[in-house]
Amino acid sequence: MRVGIIGATGYGGAELLRMLKNHPHIEEVVLYTSSKEGMNINESYPHLTAIYEQDLKPIDPDTLKNEVEAVFLATPPGVSAEWSQTIVESGCQVIDLSGDLRLRSPEQYKAWYKREAAAKSIIDQAVYGLTEWRREEIRAAKLIANPGCYPTATLLGLAPLIQEGLVRPDSIIIDAKSGTSGAGRTPSAITHFSEMNENFKIYQINQHKHIPEIEQQLNDWNEEVAAVTFQPHLVPMVRGIMATIYMTAKKEIREQELRELYQTSYEKEPFVRIRKQGSYPATKEVYGSNYCDIGVTYDERTGRITVVSVIDNVVKGASGQAIQNLNVMNGFDEEAGLTLVPMYP
Amino acid sequence: MRVGIIGATGYGGAELLRMLKNHPHIEEVVLYTSSKEGMNINESYPHLTAIYEQDLKPIDPDTLKNEVEAVFLATPPGVSAEWSQTIVESGCQVIDLSGDLRLRSPEQYKAWYKREAAAKSIIDQAVYGLTEWRREEIRAAKLIANPGCYPTATLLGLAPLIQEGLVRPDSIIIDAKSGTSGAGRTPSAITHFSEMNENFKIYQINQHKHIPEIEQQLNDWNEEVAAVTFQPHLVPMVRGIMATIYMTAKKEIREQELRELYQTSYEKEPFVRIRKQGSYPATKEVYGSNYCDIGVTYDERTGRITVVSVIDNVVKGASGQAIQNLNVMNGFDEEAGLTLVPMYP
Amino acid sequence: MRVGIIGATGYGGAELLRMLKNHPHIEEVVLYTSSKEGMNINESYPHLTAIYEQDLKPIDPDTLKNEVEAVFLATPPGVSAEWSQTIVESGCQVIDLSGDLRLRSPEQYKAWYKREAAAKSIIDQAVYGLTEWRREEIRAAKLIANPGCYPTATLLGLAPLIQEGLVRPDSIIIDAKSGTSGAGRTPSAITHFSEMNENFKIYQINQHKHIPEIEQQLNDWNEEVAAVTFQPHLVPMVRGIMATIYMTAKKEIREQELRELYQTSYEKEPFVRIRKQGSYPATKEVYGSNYCDIGVTYDERTGRITVVSVIDNVVKGASGQAIQNLNVMNGFDEEAGLTLVPMYP
Amino acid sequence: MRVGIIGATGYGGAELLRMLKNHPHIEEVVLYTSSKEGMNINESYPHLTAIYEQDLKPIDPDTLKNEVEAVFLATPPGVSAEWSQTIVESGCQVIDLSGDLRLRSPEQYKAWYKREAAAKSIIDQAVYGLTEWRREEIRAAKLIANPGCYPTATLLGLAPLIQEGLVRPDSIIIDAKSGTSGAGRTPSAITHFSEMNENFKIYQINQHKHIPEIEQQLNDWNEEVAAVTFQPHLVPMVRGIMATIYMTAKKEIREQELRELYQTSYEKEPFVRIRKQGSYPATKEVYGSNYCDIGVTYDERTGRITVVSVIDNVVKGASGQAIQNLNVMNGFDEEAGLTLVPMYP
Repeated sequence: MRVGIIGATGYGGAELLRMLKNHPHIEEVVLYTSSKEGMNINESYPHLTAIYEQDLKPIDPDTLKNEVEAVFLATPPGVSAEWSQTIVESGCQVIDLSGDLRLRSPEQYKAWYKREAAAKSIIDQAVYGLTEWRREEIRAAKLIANPGCYPTATLLGLAPLIQEGLVRPDSIIIDAKSGTSGAGRTPSAITHFSEMNENFKIYQINQHKHIPEIEQQLNDWNEEVAAVTFQPHLVPMVRGIMATIYMTAKKEIREQELRELYQTSYEKEPFVRIRKQGSYPATKEVYGSNYCDIGVTYDERTGRITVVSVIDNVVKGASGQAIQNLNVMNGFDEEAGLTLVPMYP
Repeated sequence: MRVGIIGATGYGGAELLRMLKNHPHIEEVVLYTSSKEGMNINESYPHLTAIYEQDLKPIDPDTLKNEVEAVFLATPPGVSAEWSQTIVESGCQVIDLSGDLRLRSPEQYKAWYKREAAAKSIIDQAVYGLTEWRREEIRAAKLIANPGCYPTATLLGLAPLIQEGLVRPDSIIIDAKSGTSGAGRTPSAITHFSEMNENFKIYQINQHKHIPEIEQQLNDWNEEVAAVTFQPHLVPMVRGIMATIYMTAKKEIREQELRELYQTSYEKEPFVRIRKQGSYPATKEVYGSNYCDIGVTYDERTGRITVVSVIDNVVKGASGQAIQNLNVMNGFDEEAGLTLVPMYP
Repeated sequence: MRVGIIGATGYGGAELLRMLKNHPHIEEVVLYTSSKEGMNINESYPHLTAIYEQDLKPIDPDTLKNEVEAVFLATPPGVSAEWSQTIVESGCQVIDLSGDLRLRSPEQYKAWYKREAAAKSIIDQAVYGLTEWRREEIRAAKLIANPGCYPTATLLGLAPLIQEGLVRPDSIIIDAKSGTSGAGRTPSAITHFSEMNENFKIYQINQHKHIPEIEQQLNDWNEEVAAVTFQPHLVPMVRGIMATIYMTAKKEIREQELRELYQTSYEKEPFVRIRKQGSYPATKEVYGSNYCDIGVTYDERTGRITVVSVIDNVVKGASGQAIQNLNVMNGFDEEAGLTLVPMYP
Repeated sequence: MRVGIIGATGYGGAELLRMLKNHPHIEEVVLYTSSKEGMNINESYPHLTAIYEQDLKPIDPDTLKNEVEAVFLATPPGVSAEWSQTIVESGCQVIDLSGDLRLRSPEQYKAWYKREAAAKSIIDQAVYGLTEWRREEIRAAKLIANPGCYPTATLLGLAPLIQEGLVRPDSIIIDAKSGTSGAGRTPSAITHFSEMNENFKIYQINQHKHIPEIEQQLNDWNEEVAAVTFQPHLVPMVRGIMATIYMTAKKEIREQELRELYQTSYEKEPFVRIRKQGSYPATKEVYGSNYCDIGVTYDERTGRITVVSVIDNVVKGASGQAIQNLNVMNGFDEEAGLTLVPMYP
């Protein structure tokens, strides 16, 4: 299979290139750009020297359909709103890593993203690519809205409890922590090394764009779920997300029951690992891999459940899940190209 | 004034030495040890070369009372339970940085610390040294139980709301993040550089010793407050604590009212700074200083208040607050030795 | 092929497990231990959960020869001196990642390692596994002394110049910088996070054990090479080595000639990449991969050549090169299991 | 004394503010800007809230001379070339932290800085502010060219040997490592957190602007010294420089003699500390302080001397030394405002 990447010079693109190199069903990767035509990928990423030597090509749907069978869009806001429809119509599969097509409500999109939503016709075609919970839809899809990094960690961590309705629907608080790679490759004051190292920051309080994405999926599972509190933080590290999630149990529950619920929910999933009693995941334990590791606990003193969910934000939270979706769409082994062991230490 | 430090080779001790060097009322610092008699402080800390050249002396209450007028105990669990009484009786002021004397209930101590509490008579003499809120008691005290690092950040962040009873008493969740210096100087697997760098960890879930300390003070302020949820995390940095605190407001409140409440509560405090609207503190903004910076917000969607409170865990969370208490006890300017500007970047 | 690892709980072992998982010719990995019999590998490394579930087995040469065809020794000093002979005689290939068998002179070993050398008979059987330059010997070997991390970066960086005799033989200075993973997994004061982060250290000045290893190989290539100066430093990062190597050219040389010499020397090597003019490698550009990236320059003002050579110390500097040697010994594609793209960022 | 800072929003300015706060002879600090008129310093630096509350004022030499008696220029290239003369003529002392006035030869300046030099008349007035070695000139100066960070660490490390002529004049190699704060506050790809963390880089090979500054001073001490090799590297940390300096001794020397030479040279210096035998400084041991710590060794195998010199680049390498020079110029205690104990850990 031949695949294309639009936006290969960003971190999402670099990760796709890293993983596709060892994907058994990918024979060629073609790199497209809207702004850096003719640049060799090595100029942008010397680490790819001798592995990828391509120049970036302009996006042209007519030639694109003859060159590749699927396209990853690892692009800034708005690009996918502009191109997805045309590419899908040309017969290519599209997996969009941006946030353009994730929210079904254009009003919600506009309210949180502060820009116009994509055309409703495109949004309606897009399947939300949370692989573990939408596999059948993904199998039939031509266009995937790949989930955001925070929603992936959060939703995988919440799914069993929300689907079973075991927690008070207005009690969900997500305290999320991310490495800086989630902020992308463009230098900024916030991610300037001298001001980010030996520092811990909170940002976009009550305003992060991933809030409506999380709520949309939670409500699909359980319509009684109310607005959630979600506060993101920046950790002085490059990769990794931990979502520490707090909820009040509807009624007392034994921790073991809780763990069994999670184990049962995910027992056939190759990329979700439930921790044993007393063990909670650290972000480095999934570093560079497509795993989501989850620990759960119940505190009798407070009646609260705490769920700890970790992913590598640029793998399971972006490019890894995108490849997982590609695999599902094409009937490949779901683990193809993704048998990456976490890099530790 | 001459002061002594027992446990100068730990991080709390090193920070005391850093700050006492420029304290206008301290003429001499004597270093005591229970286990490293005769060692020069430079062997343990080359960075103190030419600044402090003392050898460590054994603890002997009889000579100690002639050498110093106040003693800081920066020691492991149990040392202060053993020595405080004798030293206080000898006429020295004692400021204990350990957790030995903070809990008034020996049962609580035993339940959380998994060891026997100090004698009730000593505990009863100790004043909890949260300077901003117990200044009068501290002024009259001979023995201070200096607050823990997490409780300092948390309690300063919660005080105005709890005292006013503005939040639902069973809704308090504290998601706390700390640099590694809080774990002390003894090497361990958890704080081994190769496993801590590029990593973010949660630890002691539902079991941290600072939980009862926080609850004790909250109940002193407002007895209706129920058990809190407190989960501590380790950040790959050395210094700094951020407590992100979540609560449900009893009734709707405007964010500005909230901010004014905090500004009023702390307007005369030299070491507490309330952030303006839309600004939230990062840990580096108090790095190396005795400040506690606080941001507050209210989310109309969820009815929840989020408080962000940051300190340098080894300064305001330990040695800085200890010197602040020393100043209060002796009628010095409360800022003496503590006019440290945060080191940024 | 079935392979064994003795010492799987160290970092070298963990990296072997990471790479062997995707090695096309490895069907089983058996884990042996001299001290942790019966422990499950997940207890030591939760990141391997669901990937490796083995218990550690005791070392028994009699059963070992029936279980595996090759053994990696990722063990502390002395273990390989003790076990290599027996295992080789049992018919297994042995690749030793420790320093026990690298120096041909027992006197040198004793002088630098401060302990007795292995039996001369074992040392004589061992082939020094610097793959790029000893491929033919390795192909025929049963016992490999896998090179140290610093020597790998240094020797690959020096080979073309030394073999051609282009530099003054007494002018070689190696300023080496390493991440902390090279110091292993045992916690220590030096690698305690609080004292290593935001810090840069020099250590083992003029005394590092890798000095004689470097000199031995340089003299094999060119006997006129004199003692080198080598100073290692610790960088506050986990992985990566940079060797900045300084030499005086025997006579003036154009930088382009220099670069061409390197390009020619390594043009058929899959794991050595020579940088273009004006480009010098950073350690992250080989992170997690088996590459050695090299930049060279000549300064007309001083007549000095500077070579910059980077590797991932636990891959090309240890476990990656070990697998590369396994591939050569067994006639596999030399890149088998090693087609890892550097992880960036 | 009232002092002004031009360029207070950069890191050099922030450090001046940190230290001047506790300077016994400074009663007021006025902040000037060429581009951010009217901005409050807190908008740029929230960590200064409640400590400095000034707005930035425009530069006007006429009013400036009435407001302050000395001015620090912590400005980008060219500003000081433009303003120094006028300010000095108005009667203010000027301490210039930029590189504009350090090189006495305009040709050298142009060759290395790739821009026109300041007027020769200004350059001739400027005294190179390497305090330890030019104290008498500084005492009489009105205009100081404050040394660069790398030259400070390097020159203090080399002075005794070069002045005594103990090393071969063409053998000096400086391998320098710096934290990222030396690169300033403007975000860039090189110092983007995601690409700098867990990374170690070499940069400006053979081309760093500090090379001629180092050579100029070495030649003032000893005219036989030839061109030096100097290669700078970036360490994933914020503060600290280590210069590892290699030289060949003219004749064999005992290490103890070497150490005594250094101890004698610096015995009256409050800010230079020579390490004992077998001890070498790490950058964190001077963190936040004005110290330069130096270790020296001699290797009999190679006949080479290695000197290890560390400073905090924004203190002794910039703002600390600037204040030290202010103290000398005004007859203050040289340690005034600089009795900062290194912050450890």
